Formats: sequence, C-alpha cells, structure tokens
Amino acid sequence: MAEIGIGLIGGGYMGKAHAVAYSAVGAVFDTPLRPRLEMIAAGSPASAERYRAAYGFARAADHWRDLVADPKVEAVVIASPQTTHRAIAEAAFAAGKPVFCEKPLGASLADAQAMVAAAEASGQPNMIGFNYVRTPATQFVRQLLAEGAIGDVTWFRGEHTEDFLADPDTPANWRCFGRAAGCMGDLAPHMVNCALALMGPIAELSARVETVHATRGGVAVDNDDHGQMMLRFASGVMGHLYFSRVATGRKMGYAYEIHGTKGAVRFDQEDQNAVHLYRAEGPEATRGFTKILTGPAHPDYLPFCQGPGHGTGYQDQIIIEARDFLRAIHTGQPVWPTFREGLATARVIDTAFASAADGRWHPVPQI
Amino acid sequence: MAEIGIGLIGGGYMGKAHAVAYSAVGAVFDTPLRPRLEMIAAGSPASAERYRAAYGFARAADHWRDLVADPKVEAVVIASPQTTHRAIAEAAFAAGKPVFCEKPLGASLADAQAMVAAAEASGQPNMIGFNYVRTPATQFVRQLLAEGAIGDVTWFRGEHTEDFLADPDTPANWRCFGRAAGCMGDLAPHMVNCALALMGPIAELSARVETVHATRGGVAVDNDDHGQMMLRFASGVMGHLYFSRVATGRKMGYAYEIHGTKGAVRFDQEDQNAVHLYRAEGPEATRGFTKILTGPAHPDYLPFCQGPGHGTGYQDQIIIEARDFLRAIHTGQPVWPTFREGLATARVIDTAFASAADGRWHPVPQI
Amino acid sequence: MAEIGIGLIGGGYMGKAHAVAYSAVGAVFDTPLRPRLEMIAAGSPASAERYRAAYGFARAADHWRDLVADPKVEAVVIASPQTTHRAIAEAAFAAGKPVFCEKPLGASLADAQAMVAAAEASGQPNMIGFNYVRTPATQFVRQLLAEGAIGDVTWFRGEHTEDFLADPDTPANWRCFGRAAGCMGDLAPHMVNCALALMGPIAELSARVETVHATRGGVAVDNDDHGQMMLRFASGVMGHLYFSRVATGRKMGYAYEIHGTKGAVRFDQEDQNAVHLYRAEGPEATRGFTKILTGPAHPDYLPFCQGPGHGTGYQDQIIIEARDFLRAIHTGQPVWPTFREGLATARVIDTAFASAADGRWHPVPQI
Amino acid sequence: MAEIGIGLIGGGYMGKAHAVAYSAVGAVFDTPLRPRLEMIAAGSPASAERYRAAYGFARAADHWRDLVADPKVEAVVIASPQTTHRAIAEAAFAAGKPVFCEKPLGASLADAQAMVAAAEASGQPNMIGFNYVRTPATQFVRQLLAEGAIGDVTWFRGEHTEDFLADPDTPANWRCFGRAAGCMGDLAPHMVNCALALMGPIAELSARVETVHATRGGVAVDNDDHGQMMLRFASGVMGHLYFSRVATGRKMGYAYEIHGTKGAVRFDQEDQNAVHLYRAEGPEATRGFTKILTGPAHPDYLPFCQGPGHGTGYQDQIIIEARDFLRAIHTGQPVWPTFREGLATARVIDTAFASAADGRWHPVPQI
Ligand SMILES: NC(=O)C1=CN([C@@H]2O[C@H](COP(=O)(O)OP(=O)(O)OC[C@H]3O[C@@H](n4cnc5c(N)ncnc54)[C@H](O)[C@@H]3O)[C@@H](O)[C@H]2O)C=CC1
Ligand SMILES: NC(=O)C1=CN([C@@H]2O[C@H](COP(=O)(O)OP(=O)(O)OC[C@H]3O[C@@H](n4cnc5c(N)ncnc54)[C@H](O)[C@@H]3O)[C@@H](O)[C@H]2O)C=CC1
Ligand SMILES: NC(=O)C1=CN([C@@H]2O[C@H](COP(=O)(O)OP(=O)(O)OC[C@H]3O[C@@H](n4cnc5c(N)ncnc54)[C@H](O)[C@@H]3O)[C@@H](O)[C@H]2O)C=CC1
Ligand SMILES: NC(=O)C1=CN([C@@H]2O[C@H](COP(=O)(O)OP(=O)(O)OC[C@H]3O[C@@H](n4cnc5c(N)ncnc54)[C@H](O)[C@@H]3O)[C@@H](O)[C@H]2O)C=CC1
Repeated sequence: MAEIGIGLIGGGYMGKAHAVAYSAVGAVFDTPLRPRLEMIAAGSPASAERYRAAYGFARAADHWRDLVADPKVEAVVIASPQTTHRAIAEAAFAAGKPVFCEKPLGASLADAQAMVAAAEASGQPNMIGFNYVRTPATQFVRQLLAEGAIGDVTWFRGEHTEDFLADPDTPANWRCFGRAAGCMGDLAPHMVNCALALMGPIAELSARVETVHATRGGVAVDNDDHGQMMLRFASGVMGHLYFSRVATGRKMGYAYEIHGTKGAVRFDQEDQNAVHLYRAEGPEATRGFTKILTGPAHPDYLPFCQGPGHGTGYQDQIIIEARDFLRAIHTGQPVWPTFREGLATARVIDTAFASAADGRWHPVPQI
Repeated sequence: MAEIGIGLIGGGYMGKAHAVAYSAVGAVFDTPLRPRLEMIAAGSPASAERYRAAYGFARAADHWRDLVADPKVEAVVIASPQTTHRAIAEAAFAAGKPVFCEKPLGASLADAQAMVAAAEASGQPNMIGFNYVRTPATQFVRQLLAEGAIGDVTWFRGEHTEDFLADPDTPANWRCFGRAAGCMGDLAPHMVNCALALMGPIAELSARVETVHATRGGVAVDNDDHGQMMLRFASGVMGHLYFSRVATGRKMGYAYEIHGTKGAVRFDQEDQNAVHLYRAEGPEATRGFTKILTGPAHPDYLPFCQGPGHGTGYQDQIIIEARDFLRAIHTGQPVWPTFREGLATARVIDTAFASAADGRWHPVPQI
Repeated sequence: MAEIGIGLIGGGYMGKAHAVAYSAVGAVFDTPLRPRLEMIAAGSPASAERYRAAYGFARAADHWRDLVADPKVEAVVIASPQTTHRAIAEAAFAAGKPVFCEKPLGASLADAQAMVAAAEASGQPNMIGFNYVRTPATQFVRQLLAEGAIGDVTWFRGEHTEDFLADPDTPANWRCFGRAAGCMGDLAPHMVNCALALMGPIAELSARVETVHATRGGVAVDNDDHGQMMLRFASGVMGHLYFSRVATGRKMGYAYEIHGTKGAVRFDQEDQNAVHLYRAEGPEATRGFTKILTGPAHPDYLPFCQGPGHGTGYQDQIIIEARDFLRAIHTGQPVWPTFREGLATARVIDTAFASAADGRWHPVPQI
Repeated sequence: MAEIGIGLIGGGYMGKAHAVAYSAVGAVFDTPLRPRLEMIAAGSPASAERYRAAYGFARAADHWRDLVADPKVEAVVIASPQTTHRAIAEAAFAAGKPVFCEKPLGASLADAQAMVAAAEASGQPNMIGFNYVRTPATQFVRQLLAEGAIGDVTWFRGEHTEDFLADPDTPANWRCFGRAAGCMGDLAPHMVNCALALMGPIAELSARVETVHATRGGVAVDNDDHGQMMLRFASGVMGHLYFSRVATGRKMGYAYEIHGTKGAVRFDQEDQNAVHLYRAEGPEATRGFTKILTGPAHPDYLPFCQGPGHGTGYQDQIIIEARDFLRAIHTGQPVWPTFREGLATARVIDTAFASAADGRWHPVPQI
C-alpha cells in the first residue's frame, strides 16, 4: 500500500473539510494510495501552525510556495480564497505535482483559462471541488438520466439558494467585494456545473443579475446578491437557473427538477438523502413521485454505511472527492470533474454577466 | 332574502363546478342574495337539456342568446370555451346583466380589451374566474405580504405546471390549436394573475415560449407546450414565472415562493391547505419553515368547516367565487378580480409572446 | 327525477355540513333521488328558525318530534348531540323513516344496541356518519388492501389526534363531561371504524385511557383526554390505536400506516389528497414511498373535479355521505356503513374502557 | 497532544464505522487525546489482517484476548456480536482498560448486569454505542425538552422500524436465532434508550412481542420480528413504543413524536437533519410545525460543517461517539451514555418480554 504526501493550502471552512477527508478516506474506501497529512499552509505561519496541530498534519509551511516546493508534498489541495487559486496551481503544475482546487477554478475567466492551460501542459492530474454533484443522490440521478429513466428531457430547473446575506443589516464582509466573491462568482458554479453534468453543454442564455442590498452598514457593496438565467442546452432543452445569497429561509438550496417524456426527478440538498422520481408508467391511480432514500444500492453509499436510509452528510462528499483525486493520481487517468469542468462553468457565468449587461440572449462559447 | 336567477353557459368541467357552487353557496355563506338555477345553455340544445337535468336547473336554453335575453336570467355565468366569451359578455352587458366569465377573459388581447370596455360601459358587476387566488391559503399569503410579515420582498418565483400533454403519444385535441388554448393562453393566466395579486404590476419581462411536441399522432400542433419569463415588477423586485402542460408528474403545480428581507413564503396547490412561512426572527436554532394548516383563523375557511386542518377542496374555491359575484351584485360594488384583472393578465401574456419573438426585454403596457 | 324531503336535526358544526351537502349532492352526483330541504329542528324554535333561513330549508320545527312526525319529511338526518341520537332514531324508525345518524351511534353501548335493534326491526335504511373513511384517498386504500397490493398485512397503526383541548388553560366546556363526549367517546369512533373497515374485526385489545388535565378553570373534568390500545385483529395482525384531544400541533390527525409483506401504505388526513404507497418490487435503487395525489382515477373524485391533484375537501366527504344515504333509500339496499358499523365501533370502545380498568387483554364481543 | 492506542474488536458494519471514526475524530474535534489505530481483532486472524490493511491499523490480533492484553492497546472498542460483549468487556476492565461497547450491552440482562458491575469495579471509563441519540437533531430535542420549550410533556411515541426482514422469502440468517439478535434484542435498545434519555425512567409497561414469519426457507425462526409496548414513565406521562424489522418501506425508522402542554416535537431519522417543532404561541393563524434544519446553532454540528442545512450523516454520529469516549478517558469523568444506560435499556426490554408472556402491566425494576 503506497503512501502519498498531501499538502493542503487553507485551513478554514474547506481546508478543514479536506483535512478530515484525507484522514478518513483510506479507511472508508480502502484506497490503494494512502494519504499522509504532510504539510499545511495558510494565510500566516501562525495560523498554519494552529491548523497543523488541530488537523494532525506533520508540518506547517510558512508560505504556500514552500509547501508547493517541498519534496515530501506529492499532491496539492487548494482551499484558499479564489484570488490565490491560479498562482498556486501554476506553481504546483510547474513543480510537476497533481492539483485539486476548490471551486471556482479561478477568480476570473482568464484565470480559469490559464489554469486549464497549465494543467494540460503539465500533464498532471487535476480536479475541481464540485462536491455536491458527487453525492450518492445526484450521482444516482445522473445514472437515471443516462439510462433514459425519464425519457427525453424537456425541462431543467436548478437553483442554488442560501440566505447568509438575506438580512440587510448584516454588515459588509469580504464576500461583498469583487465579482469572484459575489453570488454568481461564488455560489453559482456548483449548480451551473450540476446543470452541465446532468444535461450537457448550455448553448445560449439570457440572464439578469442584481445587487439587492446595495449598501451594508453604510458601505457600498460591489458585487451581486442574486441572478437568474433562462437557457437552452445544446440538446435543445429549455431550462432556468437561479442563484441567491439572499434567499431567506434557504440554507442549502442546491435543488433541481427535471421533466422528461417518461418521468421526472426532483432533488433538494436540504434533504440530501432523498431523490424524488416520477415514472409515467403503470395505472394512473398509483402514479406519483417516489421518495427514494439513498442506500447501498446507490453510488458511493455503501462504504459509508450498510444501512439504507441511514444517510450520508456534507463531510462524506469531500471524502468521495478525496477518493477520486487519489484515484486520478494512482491510475494516471483523469477523473471527472477536472479543471476543464471548472472552465466550462466559468464560461457560462461570464456569458451570464454579458447577457445581463445588454438584456439579450448570448451564445455560450464552448471550449 | 332576495333571490336571483342564474343563467349558466357551458356545462362541462367548469360549467358543472359553477352549477354546484350556486347550489351550495347560499347554505355555506348565508348570502343575502340566494341564487335560483334558472337556465343553462351549452353547445347544443340536447346537451343543455342533459346538463339541466343533471345539475338541477329549471330550464335549458337552445342557444346562449336565448339565455342572455331571458327576463328571469338576472346574472350570467360564462363557462364555455374562450372563443365564445366575448360575444356572450357583450350581449349580456348590452342586456344590462352582471357577468361572471371564466378565465382567460377572451381569446385574445383585443377580446379582453373589448370586454372590459363593454363591462365598464354597462356599469354592470363583472368578475373573472381566477379561483386559485381565492383559496384560504393564498388569501392568507396576500394578507401576510400586505402586513409586511416577510419584510420587503426580494424575489418571486411562480409556476403553473401540469402534465396532461406530457406524453408525446397523446393525440392532438382542441387544446393543441390556437393561441388561446395553448399553455400560455390557457394555463398561464392563473399564475400571472397570482403574481399580480401578490406583487403588483409587472414592469418588464423577457420570455421564451416553446412547442415541445410539434406533432401529435401525425398532426401538427400550432400552439405552445411551455413558456417562461424573467421579469421585474413595478416595485423593482425580480421574478420568474414558468408554465407547462408537459411537466411530467405535476398535477396541479400552481406554486410560488417569495423571499423577503424578514421571511419567506412557499405554497403549492397540490397541498392546498398548507402555507409554509419562514420568519427571520428568534434564535437561529429554532428558525425554519412553519407548515401552517389552514383553518378557521384563515380567510373564508370557517364557513366550510369549524375544524382546522380539515381542509377545503377545489369545489370550495368556486363556491367562494359565487359568494363574491353575488356580493358584487348585491352591493353594487366591484369585487376583485374584475374583468380589469383579466385584461392585465392578458397584457402580460401578450408581452411575453412579443418578447419570445425577439429575445429582448419588453415593457408591459399598463392599463 | 324523484324528490325526497329531508328533515335535519341540529344546525351546528355537522348540521350545517349536512345542509350544504343536501344542497349540493344532486348537482355533484346527478342522483336519481333529489333532496328537498324540507325541515330543520334544533335546540330551540328560535335557533331552528335561524338555521332554516341560513341554510335554505322550507320550514323550521319547534321540536325534533314534530320534524320526525311531519309527513313531508321522508328521511331524517341526526346532527344533534350524542345524547339525543337514540330517542330521535327510535322515533324516526317507528314512523317508518330512513335515518342517517352522526357518530357516535349513541351515547353508550346500550344506546347503540337499541338503535341497531330499532333500525333492523323497522327495515328502514340506516347509516352512520363515518365520513373520513369515505374520502377518495381512504376508499382507494381500501381497494389497495382488498386487491392485495401490499401483500399480507402485518401491522396497522392508527391515530386520531387533535389539539382542541391541549391547552390546560382552556376552560371546561360540554366536551369535558360524560363518557360520550370524551376523547374515547367522541374522537375514537372515526379511527376505530377505519381500522375495522380496512382490517376487519378486532379480536382482542389492551387499553389505557387517561385524563391529562383533571381540572379546567377550577372545574373537575370527568372524561378522558387521550387513550391508546394495543390490539390483535381477527386476522391475527397486531396493531395499535391512539386517540387524543390534547395532541398539541395536531389539527386533523386521522392517520394510519399499514405494513404488508409486499408493500406499505401511509395516510394522514392533514394532507387528505395524498396516499403514500410503497411496493417491494423492482430494483432496490428505485424503491420508496410514492406520494399519489388523488384524482379522477380514484373513487368518488371525478364528480368533484376533472383535474387530478386539484383536491377535495372536508365538505366533499359529507356530500359523498349524502349520495350514499340517498342511494340506500333509492335502491332499498343497505349502503355501508350502517348502524351495525356504529355498534361494532361502540363495542371496541366499551372493551377499551374495560381493559383500561383492569390492565388486561380483553376479547372484543362480536355482534 | 497525547496519543492513545485504540484496540478495535470486529471489523464488520460497526467495526468499520469505528475505524473511520477514530481516523477522523482528531481532525474534526481537535481532541486533546489523539487516537492511534493500534490493533484490530476479528473472527479469525485472516479477517483481522484484512481489516487491518483496509482500515489502516498498525497490527492485527489473532484473538481478541491478545488485543485486550496488548500493552500498546490503551482503550478497547467492542464491535463484535452481542454474545461476545461480556467476556471481552470483563477482560478489558480486568486489564484496567477503558471500554466502549456497541449496543446491546450484553446478550442478556444477566450479561448487562455483570458488565456494569465489572465496569464499576474497575473504575474505568465505559460507554455504550447508542449513536442515534447523539445526532445534532436529537441532542437539540433533548435541550428543548430540558428547557421546557414544549411545556409539560403529555405523550411520547417512539419507534424503530426497518424492513430488512420484511420479505418472508428472505432466508433465515443469524439474526433469526437467539433473543439478543431478535427485533427486541437488537433494534429496540436504540429507541428505548432514546425514550429514557428524553423522558426519564419508565415506571411500568404492557407489551406484546411477535414472530410474524415463523419459518424462513423451511427453517424455524426462534426470535421476534416486531414488538410494541404501552408504557408510563416515572414522570406520569403515557407513551408507546414500537419496534419492527418487518416494517416494509421503512429503512431507518428511528422516529418519535412528543406532545407537551406548550408545543410538540417530531423527528424521523430518515431525514436526520430536520427537527419539527410546534409551539402553541403567537396568533393561531401562524401556528404550525416548523421544520428546523440542523446547523451550526445545534449541538455538535459546527465541527462537521460551517453551513446550516448542509447536513451530517450516519458516520458523523460515530465520530461524535469517539470524541465522547476520548473525552471520558481524558477527563476521567463519565460521559453519558455509560454501561448503566445499557443496563437500564436491558431492564425495559426484559420487562417487555415478561409482560408479553402474561399480558399484564409490569413495573420496570429500577437500577
Ligand atoms: N466546495 C464547497 O462547498 C465550498 C468551497 N469553498 C471554496 O473554498 C475556498 C476557501 O473558502 P473557505 O474555506 O470558505 O474560506 P475561509 O476563509 O474559511 O478559509 C480560507 C483559508 O485560506 C487561507 N488563506 C488565505 N489567504 C491565503 C494565502 N495567500 N495563502 C495561503 N492560505 C491562505 C486562510 O488562512 C484560511 O485558512 C474558496 O475558493 C471557496 O470558494 C468555500 C466554501 C464551500
Ligand atoms: N378556472 C379554472 O380552473 C378553469 C377554467 N376553465 C375555463 O372554463 C371555460 C370552459 O372550459 P371547460 O369547462 O374546461 O370546457 P369543457 O369542454 O369541459 O366545457 C365547455 C362547455 O361549453 C359548452 N359550449 C361549447 N360551445 C358553446 C357555445 N357556442 N355556446 C354555449 N355553450 C357552448 C359545451 O357544451 C360545454 O358544456 C374555458 O374558458 C376554460 O378556459 C377550464 C378549466 C379550469
Ligand atoms: N362526523 C364528524 O366529523 C363530526 C361529527 N360530530 C357529531 O355530530 C353531532 C353534532 O355535533 P356538533 O355539530 O359538533 O355540535 P354543535 O354543538 O355544533 O351542534 C349541535 C346542534 O344540535 C342542536 N341540538 C341540541 N340539542 C338538541 C335537541 N334536543 N333537539 C334538537 N336539536 C338539538 C343544537 O341546536 C345545535 O344546532 C354529534 O353527535 C357529534 O359527535 C361532530 C363533529 C364532527
Ligand atoms: N450502533 C449501531 O447502529 C449498530 C450496532 N450494531 C452492533 O454492533 C455489533 C456488531 O454488529 P455488526 O457490525 O453489524 O456485525 P458484523 O457481522 O458486520 O461484524 C461483526 C464483526 O465481529 C467479528 N467477530 C465475530 N466473532 C468474533 C469474535 N469471537 N472475536 C472477535 N471478533 C469477532 C467479525 O469478524 C466481524 O468483523 C453488534 O453488537 C451489533 O448489535 C450493529 C449495527 C448497527
């Protein structure tokens, strides 16, 4: 059983999630490659040392450059703010190391393009942190669609709605500045990626993006609170996406509903262990949405629990990601979603801003 | 207790509903004006006679013109197809009789305009059959919004989705021909009216409308299966509406969710006796959506049942409408929603078609 | 089309419901026999007159005896308190008139026995007001069970829970005195009847019955607030029933769940238009409870509405009852549930009190 | 940061869950004591070696006795079948080592008594694996009850229902033999413990226990499939518990509802991140059950995720247990639930069997 030294950059919300994931993934998935928590870097040497002790890394780095350069660091996980993603990834690829990067890929479309170029030039495994799309439930929905369980799809509606800035009295914080930290930059990528994963490329869209609360505590906010887009997939199917950080009452509103000629599917991450499936078959009197609880019969569930309905949680998604990144490194084969998925998502969001500016339908440039 | 002779035109789906409503409304609401089922007209004298016997009308008319002209018919209820609404209403107003007309007001915007003009020229009471907006639940939501229970509204999403044409193998029927029978013409008015009722006028919109199944049983369909619009209310609030008759699994998807600065509301007609209300108050640990079951504390519920949670049904909405029409006649005061509401709705739908044609945002002409 | 003169006794909660039902039933069900609201009686001549005017009866009676004796009253509907049921029913049968009686059949087991005897001696149609068991949803469940849709039943759990006396500060009212007005006497019959209807006779039971709030406003309460029983049906299946008028938060908790070897069913009257059906068939990955919305495919739904998911309400149940009573009279054939069902229910409740007294299992005497 | 060597016995369903938990707990909770996966034992040396490699333990033991005796094993976690619990625990206490034991405490009441005695004689930290009661949701409910959020409790209904033996064609397996592996022995302890934790001691009960499918594949089953008990808590409150392994459709039916004079609570483990709370306060028109999604405001949630509604899963419960066991060892203070909780649960179940045998109410012996 081979070991691999993990270098983690960032120890906040997602940094911790990845630290836990690399602690647990070996036991959960019996991975051929076993992670060793080698080194952690953060905003300052002191915070890096604090995280090191808390999460059980062997060493703390003074700066992410030291981590990237360290010979015992054999794979890099980026969980620092979006503005840092590009420089770190480029350095890591230059050093010939595989990179896992949290979403969004970069702070801008240009960043994302550069990062894909760097990844592909290096030939190193690369992945992006679209974790929600990897739950047992959404993986199962992807299978259902692929098998034609609901026939030809005719409509897709997705949303990612939360309410952490719903209260206008919440003072401005870092999330209120810069496009990459706005609702479209920060929240939208997850659901755009989901739409692409389940439905294929988006051909064109018409969007509107808004700042609902223009000032907070007297300070002017410079990015968006919510946005929506009508769209047409390359398959011809019509759809709609909505994203909001001011969706009062919504805590984890990563949700979608999909209509097809033979059935329909609904999912809401707030009840992440249930998929609602309708099939237009059998007597009318017994038709309806079936609430399927995830269990060992669904993708990537069994390693977490033998009991159906016992449920996986947020942290488990990150463990699944860690398994996939280790697998990409171990096999040398790309594991979806790679940086290209991050770029595809960035293009959709960039097009949405363009459409919001002129109020017209815009084609989405394909990679 | 005064009596009033009711003349009903149409004895199908809605004709029957109104027949039952006028049979029951006196006992339910103890109305000062008591309806007498005087006369019914339908597509043929034979069908009118069949309906007469079934629903308990005193007489059947050979033609709706006879009914409108009959001196014992003191109020006219139109429940025949949209193409007939205008001529009947104009004749009834000309005869100096109050008119209740099923939605949509007319078969086109021009019809709707003419009907409002006729109604207002006559000075007669006039109402339109937007029944869903009159359930105890949605009336209660309207109160909540008016009282500011959820603060300033920041987002409105509505849909009216059903699946009666979801199966592409369903052969073409009359609903497949003519704009007024399409999804936008036939289904959309209910939810557009709801949006207007709850949120006020729509200032501008960008829409897309589609025929999903262009042929049915070899016959070309000439109207739309589903449509959506992004919109901005005159209040400045952004929203989205979706309408579909191919929404597999959806039986009565008249549903909306509304976010505000202090709370949120959700409603779905498939569980018509529940309103979901979130209030951003009290400790975070006890916040969530409260599922409120309608009961005697909600508008127009008590006359149907003393027990909360015992529930009202579809037919009861029509009884509420009948009470309102009788009240408008009795008091001589307009009772919302009048024909003007029908016209306002028609304008929104007409604008949606224009926007769908050129892919741009269009202002909605106000009345 | 023949007419029949209805005499109604009681104009309160249920009296009104029956008045509305007899106003509407002809139009809803196109009944061969058409009710004429002939006469109403109540606690006093004044209240009878008030009800007459409100509900549209032709005449008010000074006393129920006059109503029963009136030649134009051809069928009697009893919606007065339980203590009055027996005397009225006996008089009506003696006068050779069909009787519909609200639940519970009488104020005691002895009453119920006498009423069945009187009914059968007279040979007149007789029915009891177990309305909930006649919703489209529960009728459909009954069909499912009869067809073996869930295999052999292995467990039945039922409850009827409301909260109208949950607040200990609610002062004592008439419901707080006398066994027939207690929770077991007044609420339990509906769900006991449901259990019998769905599962067949109860062979034996062990019960506990309690007064939770012994005094209200300083006044001693003399009947029970909630009660439960473990039971074994004659079929051998084990079950449990719970009844409460102090079930805080429950408004119409007439609910049951039934497990079988091949499936399961759940129902809750608070969402009366949905049946949840699980079938142990097909791949494990797609199993789950299907939420079936009632519609034209379900019993007695279509006459109320052509649209599935549009929903029926409380009042509609009473209209279904009225249709059945008219049918029993018209055909001369008993229509379930007759007084015998009321007696069977009374025996179960009587046995529950006996078991609660000595803490043992008791066989339930069969009729 | 001190380390502690963990010895795990059993590598199946729960053995794996504990292996993962001890891998992750340090990073999740920043525990002062850090577990080292020292040694694992199982049914055979070969399987122990397989588990060692898969879960990342340093060494495999040939027999649990070697593990218990090993000087580098400083704490013992028992996740082998119930019949082995007592001998292992006694040996571990004799060796002066803290013990965490999966539920049920022993294979019989006598075992449980002996184990408590051994634990207390040794003075070693001891805990039992009642994991469900430690979810953020149920911990929160416990707080709510303690704070009087729903007033005085008047009714408790609990169930633990699953369907892994619902199909009568499932052949007999080890779960079909021996009281400790039956539904009452194996499933019931979780919910009995929950009832005791939330409501305090059970004073008396009347139970019925049944084998629904007496033979499986021609083989006679010798233990029970489901059981129920009516009960009275020492507090005077009445309640009911139901347990089933033949509850078709139920996957993780660990569920309870609790009524109080001022509110009510409902919980179902199949949606483990939601608590439904009703409060009898404020205007009637806005009352209802509030669906609260767990989040950082609830006990033990934040270490798993900063986002409310993002959800914890089954595995996270076991991580919480691991934290508690480490805490008990580190602080030397007992952390609830200890072996005494296991014994209290065993007494209730033993009393249920006695009651089922004679059909009477039995007092539950207190410890
Ligand atoms: N996949 C998901 O569900 C989520 C993804 N994210 C993404 O994860 C990334 C991190 O976000 P959070 O963890 O929420 O932020 P956070 O603010 O909680 O943590 C950021 C971490 O980065 C470190 N950091 C900041 N500047 C640094 C620098 N120059 N060099 C090294 N370390 C630096 C900080 O010390 C801190 O430990 C972002 O890209 C964000 O978009 C965030 C939340 C959820
Ligand atoms: N408010 C609501 O929820 C609903 C409203 N509607 C509206 O109600 C109206 C009627 O629709 P449905 O009842 O579904 O149609 P339907 O096809 O069930 O019944 C139409 C009735 O009109 C009669 N009719 C047709 N041509 C006529 C003529 N020239 N003169 C007199 N009677 C004529 C027919 O004999 C038939 O009785 C339409 O405007 C429709 O949009 C329909 C369904 C639901
Ligand atoms: N099926 C169901 O869902 C329900 C059934 N019920 C049953 O209906 C019956 C009536 O109950 P409610 O309507 O709730 O009571 P209520 O108090 O609302 O009405 C009782 C009516 O009986 C009249 N009344 C009283 N004494 C009378 C007498 N001696 N002679 C003639 N009339 C007399 C009163 O004037 C009043 O109109 C009861 O047997 C009750 O158990 C009540 C509620 C629901
Ligand atoms: N807390 C919970 O949610 C659950 C608790 N349990 C409890 O966990 C315990 C284990 O059950 P499962 O993991 O389901 O069983 P399992 O059959 O999946 O695993 C049992 C393990 O014990 C080992 N084992 C058997 N005999 C042994 C012996 N003499 N010495 C050492 N190891 C031996 C086996 O090799 C196997 O690794 C039981 O007490 C059970 O009641 C089980 C499932 C869920």
